[in-house]
Amino acid sequence: MNSTGQATDDRYEAFEAFHVFDTTLRDGAQREGINLTVADKLAIARHLDDFGVGFIEGGWPGANPRDTEFFARAREEIAFRHARLVAFGATRRAGSKAAEDPQVRALLESGAEVITLVAKAHDRHVELALRTTLEENLEMVRDTVSHLREQGRRVFVDCEHFFDGYRANPGYATSVVRAAAEAGADVVVLCDTNGGMLPAQIQATVATVLADTGARIGIHAQDDTGCAVANTLAAVDAGATHVQCTANGYGERVGNANLFPVVAALELKYGRQVLPEGSLQEMTRVSHAIAEVVNLAPSTHQPYVGVSAFAHKAGLHASAIKVDPDLYQHIDPELVGNRLRMLVSDMAGRASIELKGKELGVDLGGDRELVGRVVERVKERELKGYTYEAADASFELLLREEAEGRPLRYFRTESWRAIVEDRPDGTHANEATVKLWAKGERIVATAEGNGPVHALDRTLRVALERLHPQLAKLELVDYKVRILEGRHGTESTTRVLISTSDGTGEWSTVGVGDNVIAASWQALEDAYTYGLLRAGVEPTE
Amino acid sequence: MNSTGQATDDRYEAFEAFHVFDTTLRDGAQREGINLTVADKLAIARHLDDFGVGFIEGGWPGANPRDTEFFARAREEIAFRHARLVAFGATRRAGSKAAEDPQVRALLESGAEVITLVAKAHDRHVELALRTTLEENLEMVRDTVSHLREQGRRVFVDCEHFFDGYRANPGYATSVVRAAAEAGADVVVLCDTNGGMLPAQIQATVATVLADTGARIGIHAQDDTGCAVANTLAAVDAGATHVQCTANGYGERVGNANLFPVVAALELKYGRQVLPEGSLQEMTRVSHAIAEVVNLAPSTHQPYVGVSAFAHKAGLHASAIKVDPDLYQHIDPELVGNRLRMLVSDMAGRASIELKGKELGVDLGGDRELVGRVVERVKERELKGYTYEAADASFELLLREEAEGRPLRYFRTESWRAIVEDRPDGTHANEATVKLWAKGERIVATAEGNGPVHALDRTLRVALERLHPQLAKLELVDYKVRILEGRHGTESTTRVLISTSDGTGEWSTVGVGDNVIAASWQALEDAYTYGLLRAGVEPTE
Repeated sequence: MNSTGQATDDRYEAFEAFHVFDTTLRDGAQREGINLTVADKLAIARHLDDFGVGFIEGGWPGANPRDTEFFARAREEIAFRHARLVAFGATRRAGSKAAEDPQVRALLESGAEVITLVAKAHDRHVELALRTTLEENLEMVRDTVSHLREQGRRVFVDCEHFFDGYRANPGYATSVVRAAAEAGADVVVLCDTNGGMLPAQIQATVATVLADTGARIGIHAQDDTGCAVANTLAAVDAGATHVQCTANGYGERVGNANLFPVVAALELKYGRQVLPEGSLQEMTRVSHAIAEVVNLAPSTHQPYVGVSAFAHKAGLHASAIKVDPDLYQHIDPELVGNRLRMLVSDMAGRASIELKGKELGVDLGGDRELVGRVVERVKERELKGYTYEAADASFELLLREEAEGRPLRYFRTESWRAIVEDRPDGTHANEATVKLWAKGERIVATAEGNGPVHALDRTLRVALERLHPQLAKLELVDYKVRILEGRHGTESTTRVLISTSDGTGEWSTVGVGDNVIAASWQALEDAYTYGLLRAGVEPTE
Repeated sequence: MNSTGQATDDRYEAFEAFHVFDTTLRDGAQREGINLTVADKLAIARHLDDFGVGFIEGGWPGANPRDTEFFARAREEIAFRHARLVAFGATRRAGSKAAEDPQVRALLESGAEVITLVAKAHDRHVELALRTTLEENLEMVRDTVSHLREQGRRVFVDCEHFFDGYRANPGYATSVVRAAAEAGADVVVLCDTNGGMLPAQIQATVATVLADTGARIGIHAQDDTGCAVANTLAAVDAGATHVQCTANGYGERVGNANLFPVVAALELKYGRQVLPEGSLQEMTRVSHAIAEVVNLAPSTHQPYVGVSAFAHKAGLHASAIKVDPDLYQHIDPELVGNRLRMLVSDMAGRASIELKGKELGVDLGGDRELVGRVVERVKERELKGYTYEAADASFELLLREEAEGRPLRYFRTESWRAIVEDRPDGTHANEATVKLWAKGERIVATAEGNGPVHALDRTLRVALERLHPQLAKLELVDYKVRILEGRHGTESTTRVLISTSDGTGEWSTVGVGDNVIAASWQALEDAYTYGLLRAGVEPTE
């Protein structure tokens, strides 16, 4: 590891010829409905690095405290395996010097070894939005790139509004590319900032600019015409070797070029390896994990990674698929970590339950009657709002109970109560009480917490800790709430997912109820039960 | 009107040169989660006809009773203004005669004046799925097309799996096109049934087939690579004059080429009129109306028509938009019936606050000090976890309070309490109490609900309804919970977004707290306050 927190070994070189550049944390965060905390950004950076992108644009250090903190913490907390961290910023202000510009200084202070500078390339924007001369804009590009290069940083230049600018004034737009490249920028990225372009226009312009300047060209496409993926590939066809994308296509307005179909097309359709070996099979998982972090439901119909991407409904197709699945799918879904689904058959089919059992180490093989019972129970629970995709521990409890033919329980709840009180002084009191039976004993416990769920969590721990001291290690590490049936206001069904850790592992449980507290209690019960099972404690009830 | 229920006047001729062919009711209905009744299909057909598409493929008469009924009722009940109704079906069975095939007869009996026949064009599919010889497949195409032509129907032929088939055996795939055209098909549609193609492949293949056969060529693209819109346009670039699309891109797996961005690109980017005058401005409304009929939430990020399609968040953009909106949008949103929206977030600077104020009818123009105060308050609140981009009503309250220099309140909360109790019989009791001051009076109220938030909602209503009877109309229509700082378990900050309706309009408010109940209470306070403000009630506190 060097001082910028990033490895500098040979692993990078393999992907230097073609850059997969992710800007989920910067441009993707512009999407309406996304509001990332520093913890969210760190979590996404880890997922992207695991996935194997070459560059992660983390934000604009200095522009807001959150992004500054992100760069400081990413350097400390993340041991990047594949990606280089990139800081985004602007060229210096008109009429000043890059070396004296506080915004430029903040980019250097972020410690990022690569800096992307946004520069205006459309003459009208220079005059109307930047309010400076065309020549001063070129000087701003030269001065800022040179200064950052002198400070030992690698520089990419994003030419904002390039394609609109090229249409209006091709000579000027091209001169911005030339100025950036001559000042030492490694890549000059042509941006379709307003997203209005179509592939044929992108391809023709990239080809001409490449021929005219000889600069290394990148592409940044927005999806306003619904062509961002195709526009990105059109630029690659014309010679671009750097693609800027965002996970799940998040971004301002309609969004950015979606990272996943772009890399899938490059690897599977172009036969060009742009990610480390094995990355593509992680694509579906990574897409869903990032959706979870930004708290948006994963798009069911996203190319390659959506749960519907390989789902077949037509009877015509179904019979042909029985003959040969390749007749009706453009790739083997396993290549991208997804799977074929037949919608005519039940959602949780026998085969998937068996596979899942195998994955959890519970052998169901052969016992058709047992598998059938599990399928029935899962179906019945999913109808009520449960989901087992993200709650492996709850699913394993269900599976083991059916397989062993007995309940796996350490306590039986008689009743519980939670009280949340807002006091006149503005503070809150949260108190919970539980009455339960364990090892033949009736236990009544009360505890307080920061909120009603925290109070219930502590109450359950207080009640059981004397009998099971190993529970002291358990910690709630994540808590998610989803309201199902969105249009029914506060009367809806609520689903809660909880992740719990015992220091050596983490597991997820699900609860569903007519309100958030009741749903949380169910998920907590499963979380504690699984924790004890995991610790090897024999069930007592 | 003629016997097939469709007008035959000159209005059609204008759009005969280029066919906009919609298959929402047939191929679009294959989407997972869509299940159309006959009434749904009739409603969608009306919307599509209003929008002005040239052809509406209504389904497969004879294949299921629903589609048969749809054709019968559409003929009776819809006076088509622009569209011709199309029946979909297959070529006759191998080894039979078209004139004696019951499936072909059902197509004729549907009364549709245009019939789309699906034919196999991939040699492997002919042999493996159809289980017949390549020559017999050609004969099936010739015989069925000729028979339908003899019966006075216009015929389009969909060549299924054309592009995969062309790659495997170009000679055979081309001979299917030739057979269809020679037998009298008006259009031969090349289908990327598995959706695996990219624009360059589509364009090259369409150009070659067009040159080799001279047939009128159509395109049917699926979105499995995320390129369906671009693939459709690539075919048009190569000479196709018939595009098959679905509203909102509904369709099997990932979906079909989305009708809306395709027609928008043709009209606004290619300058080619493909719909009646004035249709495009109806596009956003039609898109949302069809989403309502199929009971799917309209995609917020759909190109052109999504509510986010012209929404701007970045402060950088907002200042430029003030200078000239065209600097940051690829088209005027009014051209497609959409509108520009400014999102308020901590990335937003002064310019976006001013624009947002204008949108809400609060004039901040000129008062730099006031705008500065609002920016500061928004930043400070967003740091605590508030978000205003999805909570216009809370933002408007904040803005008006700063602009008017006084609190806009109808009550002051002294304290509240919520109790959730799980009883031994498994039922839950949810009870809330509030103590508040309004118009100099101290009011204590208690109510029950389905959950703690519902109980608080009802309690607040009980407390205030005597003073403000107009609150009776208020209804909570949506409720969203987000846990911030995802890795801190139940100790996290919680953000709640609530949407409230009074029957004539809907507004959204935000609350943040150390637990879900406290956050909900804040959002409820704003929701009721805004409801009273909206009703024109003068603030009292």
